[in-house]
Amino acid sequence: MNFTARLLQSQEKSNSLLCIGLDTDASKIPEHLKSHENPQYEFNRRIVEATCDIVCAYKINSAFYEAEAERGWRAMRETRETIPPSVISIADAKRGDIGNSSERYAHMFLNELKFDAITVNAYMGKDSVAPFIQSSEQCAFILAVTSNPGAADFQYLKVGKKFLYEKVIETALRWNTKKNIGFVIGATKPKELKSIRKKVRAVPLLIPGVGVQGGSVEAAVRYGCDNNGFLAIINASRSILYASGGENFAEAARAEAMKLREEINHWRGRYFQH
Amino acid sequence: MNFTARLLQSQEKSNSLLCIGLDTDASKIPEHLKSHENPQYEFNRRIVEATCDIVCAYKINSAFYEAEAERGWRAMRETRETIPPSVISIADAKRGDIGNSSERYAHMFLNELKFDAITVNAYMGKDSVAPFIQSSEQCAFILAVTSNPGAADFQYLKVGKKFLYEKVIETALRWNTKKNIGFVIGATKPKELKSIRKKVRAVPLLIPGVGVQGGSVEAAVRYGCDNNGFLAIINASRSILYASGGENFAEAARAEAMKLREEINHWRGRYFQH
Repeated sequence: MNFTARLLQSQEKSNSLLCIGLDTDASKIPEHLKSHENPQYEFNRRIVEATCDIVCAYKINSAFYEAEAERGWRAMRETRETIPPSVISIADAKRGDIGNSSERYAHMFLNELKFDAITVNAYMGKDSVAPFIQSSEQCAFILAVTSNPGAADFQYLKVGKKFLYEKVIETALRWNTKKNIGFVIGATKPKELKSIRKKVRAVPLLIPGVGVQGGSVEAAVRYGCDNNGFLAIINASRSILYASGGENFAEAARAEAMKLREEINHWRGRYFQH
Repeated sequence: MNFTARLLQSQEKSNSLLCIGLDTDASKIPEHLKSHENPQYEFNRRIVEATCDIVCAYKINSAFYEAEAERGWRAMRETRETIPPSVISIADAKRGDIGNSSERYAHMFLNELKFDAITVNAYMGKDSVAPFIQSSEQCAFILAVTSNPGAADFQYLKVGKKFLYEKVIETALRWNTKKNIGFVIGATKPKELKSIRKKVRAVPLLIPGVGVQGGSVEAAVRYGCDNNGFLAIINASRSILYASGGENFAEAARAEAMKLREEINHWRGRYFQH
């Protein structure tokens, strides 16, 4: 089954467009977990157990695991294994290098760790992206418009009449022969989200930036979804993971995730018939 | 001592602009090392021992270590520890993410592993680069013109009268208050190297792409050096690492590195007085 079909299935089954970003900061893990052999993994395991029926995806941010060296890498690997097959797993790794190096990254994240998708930085062009789009079952989410302030520095440079991020999208779509390319568009950029979705009706969009970063949930749903109210993957990380710093962190995360799913579904009901 | 001064010192001491890229592919390691507990590390240790007096830097390509999961991460960490303090160590990681994620990468590569430099992809702008340029002793090499075929896809887009890579350089130089930003320019792009070096006289340039990728050594030296024949870091990886696949691999690598250093110094003698 190709990636988009799997994503749809996951979103239908969970009735959710919500993705939880496992940006698990080792220094923010509740005290009572710190005696565990691998606190990052233990924290994630409980978050996944508490929320896997109400999300369509998890996004694992490699930065937070690499920050803990080998133990972190193991936490990432074992966390990946706890994600049920019906839920989409995304490696938020933002990789991209010359062909033979990208191939090594793709080998690890897609073949070994078996992530369903990975985020990719396309500055180095086609051969840097190619290893990530070999299987139609696995998706490369290419950075287009990111949610951070620095997005303005290069992504909005004018290339002829277009913005650079539009050229990135246009060019990547030419590589999309297996229909397994998606784009990262920050929820903090609703206008851009709207104009991009108009052009890429059937493409998955990964939308970070609601929650701590302040993007509008309404806009993420309204402008991020396809015609039927699907294919937007709306990510929140810190607001869910650290909803409580106490022993009830997993229940608090579930409650926060439920709230966000309901808010998302409220707007889906308003703007789409599904 | 700031990064540029340390690089100069290393290049003077070794009389070398050569950087060996430790793109150590676990599947290409000689048979007789495969029984070692960590063959990648063992291979690198011997390469470093055999060559550390004739290079100014080593560049460790994280893709090849991540491809081996925890064991690879340990090989990367232990390889870093074998590099003598007088030789520059570069993490070729091509990272870049929103501020709080880039901070985690910077924490690991620069504070924990204590690399002297890291390669950075600046597509996400200033806050994605900032965590990598906190210390004047450590350098961020920002991707400008890469050595691969895909470089043409985005790096040469015209932004007004300039190429995108020129805008990347121009913008990054405005962030360079600690004088610790350098650029990656492929040796396969001599014309661009020439025009960039004219504008950034005192900035270190990391120049991959001689060797297997076919970039000209003469052009890398002639156009990559500062006015005195320094500050170009000329990287070769596969042509040195795999000069021999047998038990004599380290000696063969040294011989190949010597040859390349001599070729580099031949052209330095031709074009510069030092």
